Amino acid sequence: MKPPKFEPAEAVLSGETTDIYFARTIDILRHEGLDPAATMEVFSSRYGILCGIEEVKALLARVLPEDKREVWALAEGEAMDRKEVVLRITAPYQSYGLYETAIDGILAHCSGWATAARECVEAAQGVPVVSFGARHVHPSVAGVMEYSAVVGGCTGCASIVGAKLAGIEPSGTIPHALIIIMGDTVKATIAFDKYMPPEAPRTSLVDTFKDEAEESLRVAQALGGKLKSVRLDTPSERGRVTPDLVKEVRARLDLAGFKEVGIFVSGGLDPERIRYFIESGAPVDGFGIGSYISGAKPIDFTADLHEVEGKPIAKRGRIPGITPNPRLKRIM
Amino acid sequence: MKPPKFEPAEAVLSGETTDIYFARTIDILRHEGLDPAATMEVFSSRYGILCGIEEVKALLARVLPEDKREVWALAEGEAMDRKEVVLRITAPYQSYGLYETAIDGILAHCSGWATAARECVEAAQGVPVVSFGARHVHPSVAGVMEYSAVVGGCTGCASIVGAKLAGIEPSGTIPHALIIIMGDTVKATIAFDKYMPPEAPRTSLVDTFKDEAEESLRVAQALGGKLKSVRLDTPSERGRVTPDLVKEVRARLDLAGFKEVGIFVSGGLDPERIRYFIESGAPVDGFGIGSYISGAKPIDFTADLHEVEGKPIAKRGRIPGITPNPRLKRIM
Amino acid sequence: MKPPKFEPAEAVLSGETTDIYFARTIDILRHEGLDPAATMEVFSSRYGILCGIEEVKALLARVLPEDKREVWALAEGEAMDRKEVVLRITAPYQSYGLYETAIDGILAHCSGWATAARECVEAAQGVPVVSFGARHVHPSVAGVMEYSAVVGGCTGCASIVGAKLAGIEPSGTIPHALIIIMGDTVKATIAFDKYMPPEAPRTSLVDTFKDEAEESLRVAQALGGKLKSVRLDTPSERGRVTPDLVKEVRARLDLAGFKEVGIFVSGGLDPERIRYFIESGAPVDGFGIGSYISGAKPIDFTADLHEVEGKPIAKRGRIPGITPNPRLKRIM
Amino acid sequence: MKPPKFEPAEAVLSGETTDIYFARTIDILRHEGLDPAATMEVFSSRYGILCGIEEVKALLARVLPEDKREVWALAEGEAMDRKEVVLRITAPYQSYGLYETAIDGILAHCSGWATAARECVEAAQGVPVVSFGARHVHPSVAGVMEYSAVVGGCTGCASIVGAKLAGIEPSGTIPHALIIIMGDTVKATIAFDKYMPPEAPRTSLVDTFKDEAEESLRVAQALGGKLKSVRLDTPSERGRVTPDLVKEVRARLDLAGFKEVGIFVSGGLDPERIRYFIESGAPVDGFGIGSYISGAKPIDFTADLHEVEGKPIAKRGRIPGITPNPRLKRIM
Amino acid sequence: MKPPKFEPAEAVLSGETTDIYFARTIDILRHEGLDPAATMEVFSSRYGILCGIEEVKALLARVLPEDKREVWALAEGEAMDRKEVVLRITAPYQSYGLYETAIDGILAHCSGWATAARECVEAAQGVPVVSFGARHVHPSVAGVMEYSAVVGGCTGCASIVGAKLAGIEPSGTIPHALIIIMGDTVKATIAFDKYMPPEAPRTSLVDTFKDEAEESLRVAQALGGKLKSVRLDTPSERGRVTPDLVKEVRARLDLAGFKEVGIFVSGGLDPERIRYFIESGAPVDGFGIGSYISGAKPIDFTADLHEVEGKPIAKRGRIPGITPNPRLKRIM
Amino acid sequence: MKPPKFEPAEAVLSGETTDIYFARTIDILRHEGLDPAATMEVFSSRYGILCGIEEVKALLARVLPEDKREVWALAEGEAMDRKEVVLRITAPYQSYGLYETAIDGILAHCSGWATAARECVEAAQGVPVVSFGARHVHPSVAGVMEYSAVVGGCTGCASIVGAKLAGIEPSGTIPHALIIIMGDTVKATIAFDKYMPPEAPRTSLVDTFKDEAEESLRVAQALGGKLKSVRLDTPSERGRVTPDLVKEVRARLDLAGFKEVGIFVSGGLDPERIRYFIESGAPVDGFGIGSYISGAKPIDFTADLHEVEGKPIAKRGRIPGITPNPRLKRIM
Repeated sequence: MKPPKFEPAEAVLSGETTDIYFARTIDILRHEGLDPAATMEVFSSRYGILCGIEEVKALLARVLPEDKREVWALAEGEAMDRKEVVLRITAPYQSYGLYETAIDGILAHCSGWATAARECVEAAQGVPVVSFGARHVHPSVAGVMEYSAVVGGCTGCASIVGAKLAGIEPSGTIPHALIIIMGDTVKATIAFDKYMPPEAPRTSLVDTFKDEAEESLRVAQALGGKLKSVRLDTPSERGRVTPDLVKEVRARLDLAGFKEVGIFVSGGLDPERIRYFIESGAPVDGFGIGSYISGAKPIDFTADLHEVEGKPIAKRGRIPGITPNPRLKRIM
Repeated sequence: MKPPKFEPAEAVLSGETTDIYFARTIDILRHEGLDPAATMEVFSSRYGILCGIEEVKALLARVLPEDKREVWALAEGEAMDRKEVVLRITAPYQSYGLYETAIDGILAHCSGWATAARECVEAAQGVPVVSFGARHVHPSVAGVMEYSAVVGGCTGCASIVGAKLAGIEPSGTIPHALIIIMGDTVKATIAFDKYMPPEAPRTSLVDTFKDEAEESLRVAQALGGKLKSVRLDTPSERGRVTPDLVKEVRARLDLAGFKEVGIFVSGGLDPERIRYFIESGAPVDGFGIGSYISGAKPIDFTADLHEVEGKPIAKRGRIPGITPNPRLKRIM
Repeated sequence: MKPPKFEPAEAVLSGETTDIYFARTIDILRHEGLDPAATMEVFSSRYGILCGIEEVKALLARVLPEDKREVWALAEGEAMDRKEVVLRITAPYQSYGLYETAIDGILAHCSGWATAARECVEAAQGVPVVSFGARHVHPSVAGVMEYSAVVGGCTGCASIVGAKLAGIEPSGTIPHALIIIMGDTVKATIAFDKYMPPEAPRTSLVDTFKDEAEESLRVAQALGGKLKSVRLDTPSERGRVTPDLVKEVRARLDLAGFKEVGIFVSGGLDPERIRYFIESGAPVDGFGIGSYISGAKPIDFTADLHEVEGKPIAKRGRIPGITPNPRLKRIM
Repeated sequence: MKPPKFEPAEAVLSGETTDIYFARTIDILRHEGLDPAATMEVFSSRYGILCGIEEVKALLARVLPEDKREVWALAEGEAMDRKEVVLRITAPYQSYGLYETAIDGILAHCSGWATAARECVEAAQGVPVVSFGARHVHPSVAGVMEYSAVVGGCTGCASIVGAKLAGIEPSGTIPHALIIIMGDTVKATIAFDKYMPPEAPRTSLVDTFKDEAEESLRVAQALGGKLKSVRLDTPSERGRVTPDLVKEVRARLDLAGFKEVGIFVSGGLDPERIRYFIESGAPVDGFGIGSYISGAKPIDFTADLHEVEGKPIAKRGRIPGITPNPRLKRIM
Repeated sequence: MKPPKFEPAEAVLSGETTDIYFARTIDILRHEGLDPAATMEVFSSRYGILCGIEEVKALLARVLPEDKREVWALAEGEAMDRKEVVLRITAPYQSYGLYETAIDGILAHCSGWATAARECVEAAQGVPVVSFGARHVHPSVAGVMEYSAVVGGCTGCASIVGAKLAGIEPSGTIPHALIIIMGDTVKATIAFDKYMPPEAPRTSLVDTFKDEAEESLRVAQALGGKLKSVRLDTPSERGRVTPDLVKEVRARLDLAGFKEVGIFVSGGLDPERIRYFIESGAPVDGFGIGSYISGAKPIDFTADLHEVEGKPIAKRGRIPGITPNPRLKRIM
Repeated sequence: MKPPKFEPAEAVLSGETTDIYFARTIDILRHEGLDPAATMEVFSSRYGILCGIEEVKALLARVLPEDKREVWALAEGEAMDRKEVVLRITAPYQSYGLYETAIDGILAHCSGWATAARECVEAAQGVPVVSFGARHVHPSVAGVMEYSAVVGGCTGCASIVGAKLAGIEPSGTIPHALIIIMGDTVKATIAFDKYMPPEAPRTSLVDTFKDEAEESLRVAQALGGKLKSVRLDTPSERGRVTPDLVKEVRARLDLAGFKEVGIFVSGGLDPERIRYFIESGAPVDGFGIGSYISGAKPIDFTADLHEVEGKPIAKRGRIPGITPNPRLKRIM
């Protein structure tokens, strides 16, 4: 995946999305004629995967004066420790003070999503993981959310905007809605096959009207060799997807000669549940994750001033001066 | 607060923020020439405060055919039960099928924020609660997040964009950064007082360099009658703000004749911690909440088709036909 | 239910089922010429439903000398407290000493089953409960086990021998085996209807090959008005029967006009799970219980001598003399 | 121990102990003229010691047609895994369908007892364990229960019928009743010694009237070299037997010159309590176990059809076809 | 109980038992010529029974200048709340600063003991409680410990010095040592009866060599009407005293005509265990408590200066000025 | 540390501090003319550090007849196991029977303190630990308490009497009281420096009026090179001392050039909290411990007679005869 092109929004650049007191601070400093070179360090409140730093970089590139700036950071997707400094900016304070809210917010939200994705990916031990969770976040962040999931290790995502940002093709099967409107899973699958371009994989959803094992055989027989996989998404009212269900569907497909049809699992998955499938030896070919990734709690980041005009300083509770971190690379 | 003007984003209207399979579904149905009147119901996965329905309404108003639509919903800010239907749309499926992802996402994220805000407000038993958490979310949702917090009961918010959306003035004190740059709390407070318009309340932050009790007296003496309140935001390295600290600062301010100076508390607050302050009888005049509200987990919403061309239908696990809910009002 | 006729087995009367030391004790006492009138009291180790006392009575009637015996007891099916004396025998010791093992054993096992049954019946709050658990006990006690379940409150039982002992008709539906051999649920149900006497209720098992909701509608349509009920016995691999499944099957049957067809639930039920169905408002018409009743832990009973030749005596740890219990009735 | 001779009871052969629906199934199949070769597999719901398979074999030998049967099984006393197939029968279904209840029941109850016995034996680390628990089960199963305990590893059992089935001598000491009737432990022990055959070991029960240490010395002195051991069975009202008590009795017996007199412990023992004695270094020479073995929960067994006329089949939730298990041996 | 005469020890008055820094403080203040009137408040860290205030008063009476002192306090034995001020001293600081360690220490230790005693007394619901615990504390505090126990509600204590301080007669039975040396409980009890003055109650200890029930009857028969009670002190190796043992001894004594002989219980008692006896209905006539009272954790007391020369002052964390407490009485 | 000189108090020698029943026992034995050689063993109820044995030895040296005594013991400060015999006395019983209460009490209290001290010392992993807890115990035991703390491994103690007993110099800084009276920490520290002898280390207490970091710098600057260390004793109302606070104060002192000034931590410390500082890498130079040591629960000791006139004997629950313990050394 190549670095995406992030473009700072107008509302961010104008300071509209900032907390008011930063706007006032800049105002006061201008009145006082104060614009010292100040060093701000940003650190994470817990272990995780850093994400959002590319977008932050795009913002800083727009606002910091080229000749008086020095920026150090970890890279997009790197693991970061609890309390580790991930970003250090030295520049005239007036040039960036207004953006503390936005910088913290981008890193917090994106790193939260990427970290949750990484947990799923690690639990899956090599089985592909796809992000499905746009329906749990506001559409304004659907794209960055799924971009972050891909940074965390997901091999695919369902939203068009997320896939675009991540530079990949969006992943999708068939929703329950299509099957309900067409009245039958086999009919809907055949229509999909008829109208969709050949490169869209034929994956049928097999829990809408009939037992999953029965429906899997029906769609496999209807599509013959063209069926790529079936998706199990059994609702909790029917006991969710279980490792035993996956094994049985596998056995029945094999018995009927459909050994090449894969099984894709979704519905209420999280790392613990994924591990349960893996440890039970269930032959899963892909996991679809919803709210565990998209509803992940943001990771709190804190920005502190540590030097003003080269002099170590800090508020109570913090150590004055530059915090050494040899992992940081100069990026600007 | 009067209803805000929400304007659907272009990326939402174009379907770019949707999951790809809905785009494909619409495509298939067009090829098949199928566009039945379909009834979709949206229900919540848990108890909470409904928020985002105004924004969803703005979207639906743009896409549903005026003569063939019927929309029922609960109102912005109403409490909703677990599994309660909060929105029911009947219209030709092709007109709205593409927006299921966006509709669910708006409601999920906004209701998550509003519900968390409500929990804080209830814990505070009448003491004002202000949302401070823009730094924990991506700037693209900073506005709707704080709007949702206000829907949930917050009396104020810190971001400019959130306050605008909610139709109120943004709230803000003085950040640590200003004090560090100016080198002294009293100096920074005096500068604030000098340059800020009279209607901005003078609230000083008193934990940057000195003990809170000592600093409170210093700023009170420096500003005389003009000081509205002090904000306590003690870092965890200094034991966070405690009810005993609030009581002591109150006692020392009173002893020095500053009975009218309020005390505003922030730093790692959640409903349990707020209750602890309230139950300890700490004389708090306002609470500032960060990530408990802004980092709240979205509330999952599910959208299901229940009728197609007037015929009850449903996928396995759901009850076919309209789900009765007398609390719904027709909104379109 | 009228009292059953219990007939002591030869192996019991001969002392073969006793612990060897009681046989030796009788032998020694005969050598010593000792046969004092002795009072033995039997008490329960915990709260429960007394069962087995009718069978014990049949044994005592065979062995105690008619002119020198006095027996007091609680009645079959009565609740008994922890440590409450439920049986008191006064008679020449040689006439009954050999049967202490058998008396304790009958009461222990039967009271264990009856007590477990009562717990299920109380949890079911009026919904009929049927014992199904003969497959978890040795066939030599299948009959007394289900007799005890009926004493505990079950309205029916599945084994022929148990029903006979309890004076009722055995209850039964259709096993998976019949459906598997006939290859289809509807076919098996029609065969059942064709050959079974009209008084055997038509209850079909609907989870063998297809989704329960779908299969329920198929058998209801096939049998028309003759179908009494469907039995849900979903295996754990398919998530067991849930309250939501019951509600949905109910709704789909109703929608199709089969309001009079009942729903019978089985599979891994215990009082907690029964309560969960009841509290969820699931419209269940009957519960079938297996190992919770038949595999119930026996309730320990202890037999102690408290008087010998009218003189109070007891081993260490027990109170010498008759233990007063006004609830006891003289039965012999 | 050589394999016992099991003889199927008439009530089992006649189908009286079966669940009614199996009787009906056979009836229906006869009407339909269906008697396919069917393969039934029986598997255990949890890890344990298989027991009862000899009795099942005796039953199958009576009912399966010699020329059309094939039976595979694990051996009596073998460890079995959770979900492991322990018995596989291929034969015309009508010949054995009636006995599913009995087969499951024999295995369930006997394996439950044998498994509990094995846990005690393993905890005892070589110290002999004797089953004492006939008083907690119905006399109809007293024999098979203690037979199963011996299969699980007990070196002895107390009931006459159990010992006979297991091909060993029954074990027994002196009950409290004899001592109470004779009025003194020493007197009862002397009478036992006088009348019992020399091969019955002289073990006295020493907690009836006096402190165990004092009474142990009294009986040791009264019987001189003939005393084999003392049994401690202290009631809970006196604090049960403790490791310290065993050590003290040992020390006092040794001090008085009775080093060869053993100490046998009973009363509320289970594996945890046995381990406590062993780990405390208490010099115990034998453990007597009651309800932990005899009141053990049966182990659920499930019987499923997996082939009909050579064709793989299975109900939902199970894998069609023969389940491979190389540990099975053909027994018929 | 009338107030005891406490006499400050020389080592306390000389300041030898104080923490060195208070001695240095007085030294420095003398050099500086500073001896302001200072108000010190002492508060408790938790709820409890105040004890030691009489001894503190005796100390203050010796050191405070009569004309410049004002002392307020709660009374000996009063309940005090968490953080409640129990003592307030206003006097020239040099006169009492040296004694802060001793004042805190006396209150801490004595209140700890009195509070533990009160918990036992409340658990005993009117049954007399006697302190027995001198063996768990250094003999230098054996007296004040048992005095404090009496302040807390004990009706007696075992040590001679404690009884003297509390103005009561010491309580005592017979130790195991006397019985072991005389070789028999009955012999030791008769010797006690022979030589001890008639007012010393005849209470025999009945667990040394024989079972408690047997021994109780032996001593009752030996002493006839003169036996006041038996003491049960069963060691843990014999299962400690249990409610059942008390009930049985009571029953056996009653049966033998000794209804007037009381039962005194000791051995590892604490409030929970006492409650267990009371709630079980065990007919106990007295409880003897050892380390629960004497080993009670001291209650931390804190002494703070709140006024100097009439001016409110306090260290960080405390409220400057006099803390209002209407329950305080002026005592000096 | 050389062995201290302990002098038995008159109240101990006279038997006044004993439990009355020992006094009566001696009285009875005198009347009976019984004074057998008796062996008493004292054992501990749990693992710990033996302390008090020197004081017991001083007592025994005064009361045992020189020609008829044999005393074996572990040494002061040795670790002892649960139930290990730590002291064995053989002598005429009348010579020492009266002192059982005192012997047990001395060992119990002193070993409790020494054991708690050892736990702190082990947790501190080489960082010096000082006992500060005289304020939590009665002044009569302040000395032995701190002596025991030193036996347990503390390098210093605060009370004058304790230091004297332990043969060391008392440790002390500056109390809050001095600072409050002088009105400022710097002023108080300068006064301390002015009047105290040069060998008293200059350690200032820095949490009275100002933030600890700020005050540390103020006193360091005021005293220049003479400041030995600062003591952090932050009250719970300000969040107690935390590892982060220590690190920050260290960093700020270093930054200002005061690398040689140590940091001493106190306030609510126990082994768990000490370990937390050590494991967090906080640069602590000394810990001051209060109630964890001084309020430690005494360790119960039990004294039993095991031989009378050379004959093994013991009460129920104990093993008659000498208990072998090769670790005991003959001390008399």
